[in-house]
Amino acid sequence: MNRLVGCLTALLLLATAPTWAYDGIVEKKTFSIAAYTTVGGTTIKNVRVGYETYGTLNAGKDNVILVAHFYSGNSHAAGRYTETDPTPGYWDAVIGSGKPVDTDRFLVVSSDTLVNLNVKDPKTITTGPASINPDTGRPYGMSFPIVTMRDFVNVQKALLDSLGVKKLHAVMGASMGAIQSFEWAAAYPDVVERIVPVIGAAELNAYGIGWLNVWAAPIMLDPRWKGGDYYGKEEPVEGLALALKTVTLHARHYGWASSAFGRKWAAADRDPAKSWDNKFAIEETLDKIALARARVSDANSFLYLAKANQLFVTGHRGSLEEGLRDVRAKVLLVPAKSDLLLFPDYSRQVAEILKKQGKPVQYFEIEGEGGHLDGVVSIAKAGEVIRKFLSE
Amino acid sequence: MNRLVGCLTALLLLATAPTWAYDGIVEKKTFSIAAYTTVGGTTIKNVRVGYETYGTLNAGKDNVILVAHFYSGNSHAAGRYTETDPTPGYWDAVIGSGKPVDTDRFLVVSSDTLVNLNVKDPKTITTGPASINPDTGRPYGMSFPIVTMRDFVNVQKALLDSLGVKKLHAVMGASMGAIQSFEWAAAYPDVVERIVPVIGAAELNAYGIGWLNVWAAPIMLDPRWKGGDYYGKEEPVEGLALALKTVTLHARHYGWASSAFGRKWAAADRDPAKSWDNKFAIEETLDKIALARARVSDANSFLYLAKANQLFVTGHRGSLEEGLRDVRAKVLLVPAKSDLLLFPDYSRQVAEILKKQGKPVQYFEIEGEGGHLDGVVSIAKAGEVIRKFLSE
Repeated sequence: MNRLVGCLTALLLLATAPTWAYDGIVEKKTFSIAAYTTVGGTTIKNVRVGYETYGTLNAGKDNVILVAHFYSGNSHAAGRYTETDPTPGYWDAVIGSGKPVDTDRFLVVSSDTLVNLNVKDPKTITTGPASINPDTGRPYGMSFPIVTMRDFVNVQKALLDSLGVKKLHAVMGASMGAIQSFEWAAAYPDVVERIVPVIGAAELNAYGIGWLNVWAAPIMLDPRWKGGDYYGKEEPVEGLALALKTVTLHARHYGWASSAFGRKWAAADRDPAKSWDNKFAIEETLDKIALARARVSDANSFLYLAKANQLFVTGHRGSLEEGLRDVRAKVLLVPAKSDLLLFPDYSRQVAEILKKQGKPVQYFEIEGEGGHLDGVVSIAKAGEVIRKFLSE
Repeated sequence: MNRLVGCLTALLLLATAPTWAYDGIVEKKTFSIAAYTTVGGTTIKNVRVGYETYGTLNAGKDNVILVAHFYSGNSHAAGRYTETDPTPGYWDAVIGSGKPVDTDRFLVVSSDTLVNLNVKDPKTITTGPASINPDTGRPYGMSFPIVTMRDFVNVQKALLDSLGVKKLHAVMGASMGAIQSFEWAAAYPDVVERIVPVIGAAELNAYGIGWLNVWAAPIMLDPRWKGGDYYGKEEPVEGLALALKTVTLHARHYGWASSAFGRKWAAADRDPAKSWDNKFAIEETLDKIALARARVSDANSFLYLAKANQLFVTGHRGSLEEGLRDVRAKVLLVPAKSDLLLFPDYSRQVAEILKKQGKPVQYFEIEGEGGHLDGVVSIAKAGEVIRKFLSE
């Protein structure tokens, strides 16, 4: 009897506080195709991207939710690689058994993109400028073709085709993942039933295009970049670290920065007014994060990602309105209130256009002072809204 | 009679639409002191800063308004250097005969700061890392002492002392000029009767400190920087241009960028998807602006300015609240609604602290989508509020 009460209590807790992790052990898999021809018309041989799955494909093969990752991320959206793995996937708060994206019900497929940044992370599998060109036996460098969001989507489509999936219950993603969800809805309107663009944009506007230029510029300023021909030599780690530092700060908000650091010095006995070597705490932390990220990242891949984002407008029809006309999926927009990178205004603008086009659209803003990153670290705040949307 | 009507009409227009320029010809003057000892305790010999004046000092020497300039600016706040000079000073819309800062009533003094950026502009006079160290006969470079906002203010104080001015009717400025006005009010509470901090902050918070680091970093990444020892050699123009590009974009807003550029290409026959050399219009324009600004600027001076801003908290008392306790001036805060660099929140926070301290504070937000720069280009929108505040 006590055991039954315990069980019921656990079930009750489960229903009201779904905080546990995806309970299976996650495996990184590889999807390969012998050749992929880009939107720009170049054929890339031996394309490989990594992917992870959480949950089980049903008999009708219609319970699939695709998750696309953000700029500096990879396909590790949920779960752990080993029993003792300390860090679960980035959206583990909402993906798993009993969670809003319920893996008891859905098969979640999360895929690495082309030109993924984390080339030196053994858990990322991608094809991009750091890959070996089979025709030369040497890394592509800047001879790799320019790719677009549509290319990212088309490779994911080939992956899903290989799994026999013909319908997507939803496409979800944060930031560049949201961008891919818009592109999925415009590219394959018959396949995509719902999209959940979190901290997203349906196009990169001029301001975003300008900032992507600023993000990428330090790489090309680094004398070790050498036009992208640095493989096997000293790499442009400093330029890449500065690019990543800029991204890291841009993804945050002044409220978060003030709470986390204030005007604290990096060391109490090293007044920044006394020496150029003495830093504020936020400067030192940003430098450490950036250098750690630079060590697993590839500079050229950063440039290809920046370009792919700059080129993005949903549907590539000439205007955003035209591109959104192709969308037939139900849309749940989830911006973050304090986002200083892809502002909530961008989601509001999309909502207005879709409403004018007579389409179903929902809007939920994540409260907080975490900035853009609230779409990742505070995704649980949108959990129940997402759960409901996926059930409608 | 017709002539009288014409005159009256002109006077009426004058009263309702004060759009004319400061009508005197402006002259850049030089203020020199044999030695200045910084807050940090280092003595700099032969300190020179440029300044301009508009209007006339009254007999009581109590009709002076000091204008301090922004990060990339200089003391050319109003008027023209010649009859045919096409571009008046940056706040010409509000400074002049009959304008809100009425030069018929006030003597406006506008001063270049120490370590001013525009070293190669013949109309900027400053002392900083590009100046010759009289002890060595060579440019200081990074051996120039680290200076702070209090140092900027103290040199301005010496300039005003030399003019016999003992009271300031007001201190005004945009951005870093606003910052200097806070510092003036805390440093010389008996002297400063009013301050008008436009698009300002009373301290650099962690987010601001981080961004100043990001702004400055490309300079040190440029191989031509060489620890600041580049004078007489190739200069780090690329790094400086990237720093200035970042500042230029940061000072704007997505609304402005979308209106001015949209997703237009730099050239109609050069699709950015086709080549790394093909740019969007906003990228090309930012690069042109940045390169033009870099040609008259000094890289080390940029670093000294970034440091001076990072070190800023009003009054330097350990906390912003403590520092603001020293302020006895009446305060008119003028943030810009779309500012994405020094957010309106920062001014609201100052207003709250001053109110809690029982001090008079007024707040007026400049409407618009121009971003931070609205505090310069749209200052006319705050004109009548400023006029009234200066008359109280």
